[in-house]
Amino acid sequence: MTTLRDRRDDPADPDERRRLSRRSFLGGGVAGLAAGALAGGLGGAAIAHARADEDAPADVSETAVPFYDQTHQGGIATPPQRYVVFASYDLTTTDAGDLQVLLARWSASIAQLQAGRNLGTVEPSRPSGVPTDTGEAADLGPNALTVTLGLGPGVFDDRFGLARHRPARFDHLPELPSDRLDPKLTGGDLSLQACAEDPQVAYHAIRDLSRLARGTAVVRWTVMGFGRASAGKGQTTPRNLMGFKDGTRNIKTDADLDQFVWHDGTDQAWMQGGTYQVARKIQMNIENWDADQIGDQHAVFGRTKQEGAPLSGTQEFDTPDFARKDASGELVIPATSHVALAAHENNGGLKILRRSYNFTDGMDEYGQINAGLLFIAYMNDPAAFVTMQTKLGRSDRLNEYISHVGSGVFAVPPAPATGHYVAEPLFG
Amino acid sequence: MTTLRDRRDDPADPDERRRLSRRSFLGGGVAGLAAGALAGGLGGAAIAHARADEDAPADVSETAVPFYDQTHQGGIATPPQRYVVFASYDLTTTDAGDLQVLLARWSASIAQLQAGRNLGTVEPSRPSGVPTDTGEAADLGPNALTVTLGLGPGVFDDRFGLARHRPARFDHLPELPSDRLDPKLTGGDLSLQACAEDPQVAYHAIRDLSRLARGTAVVRWTVMGFGRASAGKGQTTPRNLMGFKDGTRNIKTDADLDQFVWHDGTDQAWMQGGTYQVARKIQMNIENWDADQIGDQHAVFGRTKQEGAPLSGTQEFDTPDFARKDASGELVIPATSHVALAAHENNGGLKILRRSYNFTDGMDEYGQINAGLLFIAYMNDPAAFVTMQTKLGRSDRLNEYISHVGSGVFAVPPAPATGHYVAEPLFG
Repeated sequence: MTTLRDRRDDPADPDERRRLSRRSFLGGGVAGLAAGALAGGLGGAAIAHARADEDAPADVSETAVPFYDQTHQGGIATPPQRYVVFASYDLTTTDAGDLQVLLARWSASIAQLQAGRNLGTVEPSRPSGVPTDTGEAADLGPNALTVTLGLGPGVFDDRFGLARHRPARFDHLPELPSDRLDPKLTGGDLSLQACAEDPQVAYHAIRDLSRLARGTAVVRWTVMGFGRASAGKGQTTPRNLMGFKDGTRNIKTDADLDQFVWHDGTDQAWMQGGTYQVARKIQMNIENWDADQIGDQHAVFGRTKQEGAPLSGTQEFDTPDFARKDASGELVIPATSHVALAAHENNGGLKILRRSYNFTDGMDEYGQINAGLLFIAYMNDPAAFVTMQTKLGRSDRLNEYISHVGSGVFAVPPAPATGHYVAEPLFG
Repeated sequence: MTTLRDRRDDPADPDERRRLSRRSFLGGGVAGLAAGALAGGLGGAAIAHARADEDAPADVSETAVPFYDQTHQGGIATPPQRYVVFASYDLTTTDAGDLQVLLARWSASIAQLQAGRNLGTVEPSRPSGVPTDTGEAADLGPNALTVTLGLGPGVFDDRFGLARHRPARFDHLPELPSDRLDPKLTGGDLSLQACAEDPQVAYHAIRDLSRLARGTAVVRWTVMGFGRASAGKGQTTPRNLMGFKDGTRNIKTDADLDQFVWHDGTDQAWMQGGTYQVARKIQMNIENWDADQIGDQHAVFGRTKQEGAPLSGTQEFDTPDFARKDASGELVIPATSHVALAAHENNGGLKILRRSYNFTDGMDEYGQINAGLLFIAYMNDPAAFVTMQTKLGRSDRLNEYISHVGSGVFAVPPAPATGHYVAEPLFG
């Protein structure tokens, strides 16, 4: 077969066609404008303002991120949007054709959503019609939505005949020292990471894409993040729910992205320009942390709290001096601090791209506020995460205050060309 | 006793004093500026821009709502902010003095938070110091935060000797036809509704106020709302997760507020300028709703979906014609539709002020997306809600798609004068 397209891209009913666009002035021109104006890669360049021709102040709700004809999928090097809804899915089919159709429909739909359009019609003209879009984002702009599609290791098991496409280094994560994984929050054959500047836009994307998947895949676990906790290039560093800045040393250059994040296609050409995604739901023991002394909090992170400076320096972006000792001969940045254990200087130069979000789930069974970090990271070799987390899980002083309760690893193919879909080469 | 103040308002340590202000340029002047510039009541006037002296575009993150010396608490007639964290608390003390101290500390702290300040220090100068503010909002402005404090019926039971202050019409809600209440999500002696333009600011407020309550009160249930679903004066109407606009006919005039929302102090003078808050956690059966035909969805709400017009009209704000019949003699707006059952025309003129938010809780035990509406309403007589919900619970076609799983009712006193605290007259 050639190219699958969502039939609802071209509704027969003129009323439906009129209603197709969530914002009529955006129309089909947005994706094109954006694609034309942009080079791929990091930084502000990865986001276009749909109304750039007007001199009104930039309205983030009208920002659209192009989907087709990019080197990489959005939501990876795209400067982190404020909100996320992440979902992992189990395939309920064993037919490779069903999987192919789902990937094609999802791709066409993600392109619509990122352009700020509904997925079909909110209000069919016949009373017996069932809306193809659930409508809760109908009045909202694209809000820089990106939906990043990943394939779990299960896609390459014996169900679909795709084992020959499995990258050699891609498999389920091994058990790690800090794991307290809940099976209900772990694994998944597919993942969707929807990031947007409006959480209702991200929620709508996951809801309607889940709906499209019925009969082929079901949601296994999902997390809504209410605030970004990692910084990208040009962004000020946000804070996690322990009150510390997160992402000060995150990857912020194209050179680092090329070296540590983007897959070069050796071993499996279809992954060229792709990457791997690791998602971890990390529960924080908030109330114990809140009772901890500031001196211990400093030692746990290896940084000050307000400024976020390494304990060896005074400013957030000072390079940590891991060798410096105080008058009594103790390391100023403890070797078991989070910054020391995770630093590329202490890991043979290893870096990963983090894209984490804060979450809360209400009260836990013990009457404490249930909250934590949805840790999402991208890297061109999943072993990078395993290496770092093995070390962190064994020694990190932070372990007293956190538990890794959910986990998943996914291969993220590059973005498709117009008219094609994510992972299409698997079905060639 | 006279006035209780949080001792951390005036920290002895100069480092702590310096760090007290979340944004140093906001300082103590904001509340004063705002209080001076404002009349109470509805609309944009209820929110001041802290940097009104500059001609930069209005930055919602720098918007502060005054706490002291207002006729009413914020978060009621204040135009709904985008996010909410709502929490209900159980008192764990039977000592009226403990309750009094908590209300005083909460009031002083809410004033700090609404001005964009931390609750004390994020980073004590001594290593053995424990931070008095958890820090995750340390870089964020006030974001129009309002924290609205309510007292449950339990405050007036025989524990605290306050029974003589109980308003005659204030009691636990009776069992209502649509109730499927989970006891863990129902009731509470106190409530805090934190609304803000940044969800991390609302989360931080509830977390740190909960922390202040330790030993006196514990969180009973909490809901984070990720998008407002009710409109105030001058706001466009947002959508609930069924895709319909919510709040088109909400109270939007001072006259209606005076008639239906503000307590006039008869019976209990301490409630003058106060109101009652009803909070309901409403679970939506999202996936059944999504499979429903548009004709049925129209009949359930009595409105169109995209425009939100009553079925008797064409525009959102057209007045519904509940008597109009179609050619076959059927009412155009079904008598069992939500708009017909809730309309003041069909309820002896009764109106309530709604302030609802969308929420999601991830997956439910059946593998479906768990989502719904945190319905919050304000009225000067709780019987108004009971009357309307009894009618809705018996006949509303919406009941097929929703369940009321959580519930609480709270008396919301007026705002205190500077140096005083919410509900202080109870302890005179």
